[in-house]
Amino acid sequence: MRDRLLAAEKVRAIDWRDGALHLLDQRALPFEETWLSYTDAAGVAEAIRSMVVRGAPAIGISAAYGLLLGLRQRLAAGGDWRAALEADFIVLGESRPTGGNLAWALSRMRDRLQRLKDGDDPSQVLETEALAIHESDREANLNMAQLGMELIRKYQGSEQAVLTHCNTGALATGGFGTALGVIRGAWLDGMIEHVYVGETRPWLQGTRLTAWELANEGIPVTINADSAAAHLMKTKGITWVIVGADRIAANGDVANKIGTYQLAVNAMHHGVRFMVVAPSSTIDLALASGDEIPLEERDGAELLEVAGHRIGPDVDAFNPVFDVTPADLIDVIVTEKGIVERPDTAKLAQLMCRKRLH
Amino acid sequence: MRDRLLAAEKVRAIDWRDGALHLLDQRALPFEETWLSYTDAAGVAEAIRSMVVRGAPAIGISAAYGLLLGLRQRLAAGGDWRAALEADFIVLGESRPTGGNLAWALSRMRDRLQRLKDGDDPSQVLETEALAIHESDREANLNMAQLGMELIRKYQGSEQAVLTHCNTGALATGGFGTALGVIRGAWLDGMIEHVYVGETRPWLQGTRLTAWELANEGIPVTINADSAAAHLMKTKGITWVIVGADRIAANGDVANKIGTYQLAVNAMHHGVRFMVVAPSSTIDLALASGDEIPLEERDGAELLEVAGHRIGPDVDAFNPVFDVTPADLIDVIVTEKGIVERPDTAKLAQLMCRKRLH
Repeated sequence: MRDRLLAAEKVRAIDWRDGALHLLDQRALPFEETWLSYTDAAGVAEAIRSMVVRGAPAIGISAAYGLLLGLRQRLAAGGDWRAALEADFIVLGESRPTGGNLAWALSRMRDRLQRLKDGDDPSQVLETEALAIHESDREANLNMAQLGMELIRKYQGSEQAVLTHCNTGALATGGFGTALGVIRGAWLDGMIEHVYVGETRPWLQGTRLTAWELANEGIPVTINADSAAAHLMKTKGITWVIVGADRIAANGDVANKIGTYQLAVNAMHHGVRFMVVAPSSTIDLALASGDEIPLEERDGAELLEVAGHRIGPDVDAFNPVFDVTPADLIDVIVTEKGIVERPDTAKLAQLMCRKRLH
Repeated sequence: MRDRLLAAEKVRAIDWRDGALHLLDQRALPFEETWLSYTDAAGVAEAIRSMVVRGAPAIGISAAYGLLLGLRQRLAAGGDWRAALEADFIVLGESRPTGGNLAWALSRMRDRLQRLKDGDDPSQVLETEALAIHESDREANLNMAQLGMELIRKYQGSEQAVLTHCNTGALATGGFGTALGVIRGAWLDGMIEHVYVGETRPWLQGTRLTAWELANEGIPVTINADSAAAHLMKTKGITWVIVGADRIAANGDVANKIGTYQLAVNAMHHGVRFMVVAPSSTIDLALASGDEIPLEERDGAELLEVAGHRIGPDVDAFNPVFDVTPADLIDVIVTEKGIVERPDTAKLAQLMCRKRLH
């Protein structure tokens, strides 16, 4: 299955080569495949802020490369590069507030920096670290896909319909995806008949990215208005909602794309299982509960325009782009370290003590 | 309050004059105010089907005028006009499947036709009937607003935030609205601090019509992605969800705009009261439960285009435009005949036996 899963890696959104970070501009997908190149930290931070790259794991990976680019510029400029690099940590760290992987990746880069020995080439060492972050995310996707597939197999044998939200695939990660990785694997294994995906307003990641990724691979996918989820659960035999996460608090509360919370409430109402799939780098044990997760609110104009075209009058718009799903609505969190059923603080702490599987 | 409510009638979407039906093209709002004129039943049916006019009560009123236009054409053509008119009943009756008011209005026109006496002018009699249907909807709006306001007052004294969905205002009715009429009244009476409205994908009636109607009157309104509703209930102190209905079955199950059902599930989860406001012409005692209500599914292309601009790849899209909210998730149904708390078959039957208040 590992080889079949790897063969499903057909899209890459992050490419590190020739000393520059190349990002597939996800704002223009699926109509244009435009690659943008970055050679400094501020540029990468702006790419994250403006959603050229999105998806918590992909943001973390991009930030690691961004920090590396910053380091190279600081080294070339001479002087106290360590002090100067702090500005890059800040600009990258503040590019988006909610995703946990961003801070995790920067923290890993900082740790590696602090363990530099005399004679080490900082640039070389941090490049290795950024590549390792990227590669480990890919490996994590593989582990999670297999763990998630076991769960689906365990609970139900026949082909089933699943519902996902936003995009958690190759475009959001360093591999073929978190939630979408599980879905890809389960489909390859004959366990899934159909995938439904909410269009995911306002950025339409479900329509533009997830449906595009799945359709490209011949996986049967249907989009729906986000508000149709309850009706889908009632009429289409949905057995699992499978989503990713942007940050997971110590008690298992999950911040994810706006709309996830109401999917979870509806899943519980309809007896549909609810699976969250995210690498352990998404888990932030420093935050006791979801109440402490900073939730990004973006410009209301994002709700009033589509592809540059005005769709509404000039009225006030509330545009929170994440919400928090409380742990008690979640059946299982799947990470590369293992699964946590009915998550709580003790179980997540135990999970995070485990040695990395990869 | 009646006078203040009537003074709030600032927008009209249906105008019968000079022997023609004039409809404000709601597809172009709020950017263009275009009036389209119809002089035959088929034209009105097409206007209903293509959503020039929408909202169950407004569709019923339009169909009544459409039938009148059909009658005039059939009379002018000579021959067996009664037989010929059956085609107009059919084309109008089949224009959209879910709303109950359409069949109700046509049935009322047919009843009147059957009670014609020798010497009556059919055209004159049916014009009077269509005007009465139109006017009674306006009166129903007034009654419902006052009944709904009493409910809001009864349960909570302080100013509060309410959430609504789609458009149930002047554009959807013959007056100033059903759910939006209650909201208008409660705001005029100082009971409402803020109105949130889901954008209502795919047609964006919340953004284009409801926010526009409310903002024009200075009522504080904020739009949100439909998927943000649970997050709103958790964080914005929403005390009521107030929505309209397209058809209500005998047991109190309510068909309304897609997304209503998941709002109801989330309202129950959050302890938010759920009010449905609809004239009794929406209640269809012939259908035992919501399972029997025909739910329209429209072309999936409506999810893939916005204002003529393609927003997604060429994938399958499921576009049910209504869903059914079961009676047990509804706190109260407000009609012009009175209110029904915790609706069930016995209570609705009792309500429908009441003499019309107007």
